Amino acid sequence: MSKASVALTPLLYPNYEDPDAIVVVIDVLRATSAISSAFETGVKAIIPVESIELAREWKAKGFLVGAERNGEKIEEFDFGNSPYDYMDPALKGKEIVLTTTNGTRAFNLAAREGYKVVSASFVNVTAVSEWLADQDRDVIIICSGWKGRYNLEDSMCAGAIIDMLSQHEQFNDYSDSALASKYLYQGAKDDTFKFLRNSSHRKRMKRLNMKEDIRYSLTPDQSKIIPILNGDRLVPLEV
Amino acid sequence: MSKASVALTPLLYPNYEDPDAIVVVIDVLRATSAISSAFETGVKAIIPVESIELAREWKAKGFLVGAERNGEKIEEFDFGNSPYDYMDPALKGKEIVLTTTNGTRAFNLAAREGYKVVSASFVNVTAVSEWLADQDRDVIIICSGWKGRYNLEDSMCAGAIIDMLSQHEQFNDYSDSALASKYLYQGAKDDTFKFLRNSSHRKRMKRLNMKEDIRYSLTPDQSKIIPILNGDRLVPLEV
Repeated sequence: MSKASVALTPLLYPNYEDPDAIVVVIDVLRATSAISSAFETGVKAIIPVESIELAREWKAKGFLVGAERNGEKIEEFDFGNSPYDYMDPALKGKEIVLTTTNGTRAFNLAAREGYKVVSASFVNVTAVSEWLADQDRDVIIICSGWKGRYNLEDSMCAGAIIDMLSQHEQFNDYSDSALASKYLYQGAKDDTFKFLRNSSHRKRMKRLNMKEDIRYSLTPDQSKIIPILNGDRLVPLEV
Repeated sequence: MSKASVALTPLLYPNYEDPDAIVVVIDVLRATSAISSAFETGVKAIIPVESIELAREWKAKGFLVGAERNGEKIEEFDFGNSPYDYMDPALKGKEIVLTTTNGTRAFNLAAREGYKVVSASFVNVTAVSEWLADQDRDVIIICSGWKGRYNLEDSMCAGAIIDMLSQHEQFNDYSDSALASKYLYQGAKDDTFKFLRNSSHRKRMKRLNMKEDIRYSLTPDQSKIIPILNGDRLVPLEV
């Protein structure tokens, strides 16, 4: 029998931590959506790093680097974290370094402790959920949130995964945060756009004119690829 | 115009902190429900303390002391944190020291920073909400949770307050955590007992045979008293 928990922000992860559990990192707007976009393009690996300084070191070594802070691309780097930045066919086979305000921090946190660590968003939500259901392992989902705060879109995506796991008998123990995320998702799934109308991050991105990014990031199941950490690199899981 | 935020656990409070905001502490099962019960009995003041050691010092000075850890009364003290422990008419006019697993920690956290700090639960939810709506101040609600984890009942009670505040025009800015708590409450309000059937803390308390405590703690508006911190003491707000 398996347990499923949700850390509603990275800060809460230590309360759920279990080195034998599979860790799922979610950053819907936009790191994990962009990661799925990159793998759909045929990118070979994504290297999530926590700081601008580390990103700079990788860039000096000749790597392509995506870097975002406060929702915007940092000028000196190659990409921001828009999923559309990673759709250029020329990126096929490349390794790309990525640092973002929230999402890459969650990877670096989880990478230290999880049995396996995967990247999820609405873009690959069913693929990740079905794979999790086959693993016979406890699951901890980390919502990246926004600068330490809870956000609606990550919790909703966590709820979509919990909703799918709860159709599998072996998941019989849920944290309250998992139940709350599931209720949120069930109430919102028929119109996620409308539901997120008032969310803080969507308002922020609307100001930044990122309507297309939002639409891409909230559209489920555009990818069947499960990005999984292998050392310091996210690579497509071979299933 | 005013802002309303919810710290879904005490650990997240620093992300919302604002010394000019009114802070509302919630610990539905059972600290803030018991505090309301005590004031309804006519207790003069509740002194929330963080540690067993401090509680012992107060007891040595001759105070009555309630102390709970892991859901159970600690033997050497006078009460646990069952609301029923505080209904004895002999307590009228007394000052009582209280230490609990989660709730009193939240008070000690908030007491350092809030403009004003009040205690809320379903027991006094409408009284607190109506008072907040009249204050022309930002509001930060702290859910005590369970040992650092999010819990459903505190978030639901926070959602009940947000739901009432949102009927007042001056509240026009909500954190995502406030919106999520409101959605949770709106989905659950018609049958909170059933909704909380699977919550972790309710399961824990059911094992401890605390059905009556749960019923008391989930029954709204049994009290119109707003307990407010004055120095190190919670006292009834004079309205």
